[in-house]
Amino acid sequence: MGDDLQYHVDGDLVPASEATVNVRDRGFMYGDAAFETLRVYGGVPFEWAAHAARLRRTCETLGFADALPPAADLRERVAETVAANDLADAYAKLSVTRGVQPGKLTPGEEVDPTVVVYVSPLPRAGVDGERVWDGPARVATVDAESVPDSAVPADAKTHNYLDGILARLRIRGTDYDEALRRDAEGYLTEGATSNVFFVEDGRLLTPTEELPLLPGVTRTLVLELAGEADLPVETGRYGPERLREADEVFVTNSTWEIRPVERVDETAFDVGPVTRRLQRLYDERVEACY
Amino acid sequence: MGDDLQYHVDGDLVPASEATVNVRDRGFMYGDAAFETLRVYGGVPFEWAAHAARLRRTCETLGFADALPPAADLRERVAETVAANDLADAYAKLSVTRGVQPGKLTPGEEVDPTVVVYVSPLPRAGVDGERVWDGPARVATVDAESVPDSAVPADAKTHNYLDGILARLRIRGTDYDEALRRDAEGYLTEGATSNVFFVEDGRLLTPTEELPLLPGVTRTLVLELAGEADLPVETGRYGPERLREADEVFVTNSTWEIRPVERVDETAFDVGPVTRRLQRLYDERVEACY
Repeated sequence: MGDDLQYHVDGDLVPASEATVNVRDRGFMYGDAAFETLRVYGGVPFEWAAHAARLRRTCETLGFADALPPAADLRERVAETVAANDLADAYAKLSVTRGVQPGKLTPGEEVDPTVVVYVSPLPRAGVDGERVWDGPARVATVDAESVPDSAVPADAKTHNYLDGILARLRIRGTDYDEALRRDAEGYLTEGATSNVFFVEDGRLLTPTEELPLLPGVTRTLVLELAGEADLPVETGRYGPERLREADEVFVTNSTWEIRPVERVDETAFDVGPVTRRLQRLYDERVEACY
Repeated sequence: MGDDLQYHVDGDLVPASEATVNVRDRGFMYGDAAFETLRVYGGVPFEWAAHAARLRRTCETLGFADALPPAADLRERVAETVAANDLADAYAKLSVTRGVQPGKLTPGEEVDPTVVVYVSPLPRAGVDGERVWDGPARVATVDAESVPDSAVPADAKTHNYLDGILARLRIRGTDYDEALRRDAEGYLTEGATSNVFFVEDGRLLTPTEELPLLPGVTRTLVLELAGEADLPVETGRYGPERLREADEVFVTNSTWEIRPVERVDETAFDVGPVTRRLQRLYDERVEACY
């Protein structure tokens, strides 16, 4: 994220180096904020409706959904930021905080949210597009628990991201790209920034939303594409050994899209036919934006 | 926290309204930051060594302790901020973030931390001092789990504070002051901003550090004062019913000091002799600062 970019802070476009929030903003003091990361293809924020809906759900969980600007307003801020940077293909991150409040920890009812849009350039995607990653991912299963829903609901995408950061710290300095976490019972949940899928005998499997994980927008779209392609799908509770014994493994998020996995811990994988087929279907969906 | 106050941001004193951090600061994006709240009595940061040690431990957990300025430097920033606001008695909050980094979620090794000192005026404390609270606390035991140590260690005091905020949201609009949480098995852990103590037959009890809770600096001092006063002390695992059946209950944090509890859920309590005795010993310890 370079300093020559323009960000959008509370309605104004400002150089990234001057894009600031007050230190009393609850987004800074407590991570008391919701966010979405999305891709813009040919000027179009991809899967916008799904991102806007999840942002609203997060704000409902945090108790300030009434203060969230309308989705059309937020979309316009993203579009303005992308345009101001002369971009057509971009990564965009939209954050909405509970803002500055006079009281202490207990949130006040009166909310003047802080809205920030970050962007950075990405290559053109779609059918003949370029991947944002260098190659397939190497993922490590790590002994880090996902925060249980009874503490902070995992389907809320918030600025409280230390659980993911601590998982990633366990693979810092190695050649792993992603750290897969587990729930209290040891079932795989998700990576620090991705959902995980695997293929067994032609069936597509991914951890169930009943586990503490963020059901990604890309995860939902992949499940939809699999359904359209009559690919058998199963969601459930799986230990790391199921993943290591799979035929194919891939991870998903809005930025990576569908990224094949070439290694889970010490086990190597090829990029398989189901992964390639889903990538093609995904690219075709993206291509419709251009 | 009024706009006429001066805060300390990265080495400079600035009006609170102009005290900002960049939106790319990891403290804002991810709550990737450590903090301490403390009281300054007669210009002296109380229990400074304990706060400085815990801040270092938090930064160790987060993996950027090497970048933490020396404790003497941090203490000087607190003292400068207090002096710049013509205060002798104050609340102070010291935050240290991982700063802005070029990469994505996985923290880089190179850390240029952002250091912020907030202050606000408080009345003189000590033996003939004034309490910062209006009266004894009313606490509710809520069905909210503390984040388990295997996700984010509870003894790290970080800007990821949504678990406490979500617990407090459950008592918003009621006359409760504090929400007591539990671990996965239902044992009491701590309030959103306080540790809890209770008295049974002249013995002082508090949840053990083996549970996911932040062992407060005030909690440690209270245990020390109890030891000096030959008061029997026990730490362990207690359900909410133990608290409701206690003779006395109080909560502690650096700002509140020792705050008696007059109600736990529907059960009323008087301010008892053990609480008063510990308050007096605490006030005497504070008085030594003046």
